[in-house]
Amino acid sequence: MAKNNTITLYDLQLESGATISPFVWATKLAIGHKGFEMDIVPGGFTGIMDRTGGKTERLPAIVDDGEWVLDSWLIAEYLDAKYPDRPTLIGDPSIKPCAQFIESWLWATAVGPWMTCYVKSYRDRSLKVDHEYVTSSRANMLGAPLEEIIVGREDRLPQISANLELLRGTLRENRWFGGDEPNYVDHRLLACFLWLASVCDTPALASDDPLRDWLDRGFDLYGGLGRHPGLSDIFGLEQRPGDPDLFDRSPREFGLNKRNTGPASTAEETARITADTN
Amino acid sequence: MAKNNTITLYDLQLESGATISPFVWATKLAIGHKGFEMDIVPGGFTGIMDRTGGKTERLPAIVDDGEWVLDSWLIAEYLDAKYPDRPTLIGDPSIKPCAQFIESWLWATAVGPWMTCYVKSYRDRSLKVDHEYVTSSRANMLGAPLEEIIVGREDRLPQISANLELLRGTLRENRWFGGDEPNYVDHRLLACFLWLASVCDTPALASDDPLRDWLDRGFDLYGGLGRHPGLSDIFGLEQRPGDPDLFDRSPREFGLNKRNTGPASTAEETARITADTN
Repeated sequence: MAKNNTITLYDLQLESGATISPFVWATKLAIGHKGFEMDIVPGGFTGIMDRTGGKTERLPAIVDDGEWVLDSWLIAEYLDAKYPDRPTLIGDPSIKPCAQFIESWLWATAVGPWMTCYVKSYRDRSLKVDHEYVTSSRANMLGAPLEEIIVGREDRLPQISANLELLRGTLRENRWFGGDEPNYVDHRLLACFLWLASVCDTPALASDDPLRDWLDRGFDLYGGLGRHPGLSDIFGLEQRPGDPDLFDRSPREFGLNKRNTGPASTAEETARITADTN
Repeated sequence: MAKNNTITLYDLQLESGATISPFVWATKLAIGHKGFEMDIVPGGFTGIMDRTGGKTERLPAIVDDGEWVLDSWLIAEYLDAKYPDRPTLIGDPSIKPCAQFIESWLWATAVGPWMTCYVKSYRDRSLKVDHEYVTSSRANMLGAPLEEIIVGREDRLPQISANLELLRGTLRENRWFGGDEPNYVDHRLLACFLWLASVCDTPALASDDPLRDWLDRGFDLYGGLGRHPGLSDIFGLEQRPGDPDLFDRSPREFGLNKRNTGPASTAEETARITADTN
């Protein structure tokens, strides 16, 4: 059992002390879900190998009673295996493939596109000692200087928000991806929005976005891990003339999510699809 | 316990006897997964209320020892609740939200677009008694006569195939969405491809599509439910000059799916992102 109910977490931080990495955010939520306190080892990208005694170039890493565990997925699996009597993170072998699919979708749909909007503040908010590394590594990853990458972001942000409708659809029908309680699927996805809040210097979502309920509940979890004072408000994006709707204000009830409980439940749809349109 | 290990399934069929509905396909796979035989009540869209004694306008419906259960999701939940000692379909409360997300993605990405390519053969292959209903209801749903809807499909099919890369990514890393064994997530998704095979009069995927391994294993499940002689070959789409690649032949190893097991596992990426590109 973790000594004093505490697990040591090697963090990856911004100047504000907030976490810059979605993977570390996911691990913070996972540790909170298992009911442990965190002993946080601070620091940024520079000197990870020194801080960890050569154990890893990447974070998160945890130390639990002297045992090192690397990698956000491996940490979650370790916590479930070591502490099966505490709340479960990954309750079925199907959850990892499903979470990988949904998280990959979120990265392709929003995290990657948001990085092209926020990479300059991502660098500006990083530890001073990290500025040079972040500037050159992210320019390498994205293929241009950071100041050029963000040009035109005001035209991209509305479409990124509009493209999140699949996520809104699932969360209209379900309180959490975990069902009645959050699980590691929620943590993986919430971690992307916590990363967003850590680095965004202008809002990404409308104030009345339907995702807000899930996000607010998610940011409040485990003593309010997502209420770190270094985080920015992700809400407040305004739709300008010519912008797409930031979210669908009248989503069609989707056939996949309707349940057939007998003729009364399908009569309206039947009338619509058999209407004489001549 | 189902008498003689058999559950009665009200099918929704094409003239070939193959199933036209992805929801009924999902139920067939679910019943097979639970190890039951099926007593199939044949028929198409016409006369469902008569065949079911007014119980439902939509299929699937099952009768198990005199108990009627409607709706593909509700049937799967019923089978798990009634027969907990048989292989599990939905092993965790997180699986339904995740499956709904992934299935909604597949409908938006492929099932809907494929319907615009195959709606004429969908009608032509339906029972003769259903032709008029299918013609008018699908024209209502899709907003044009079926012959007009499919125009230009040869230009759409390559892009639909290209858009399935997220699915390929998950299945490169995992044998099934269920993990080592299929579960109801696989059934929901496989059912869409069984629907495709039931109605496609020209191939939708390349012969060497990476999805083929999962699809072939999925079509073979439970005594080869997906090998009905009425099904068409979904493979054989050829890339024409100017078409997008039908799938990604050199997918980038994606950061989300890489595991950090120490510095040796990340050294190559580190070298790439810190390379001096001047």
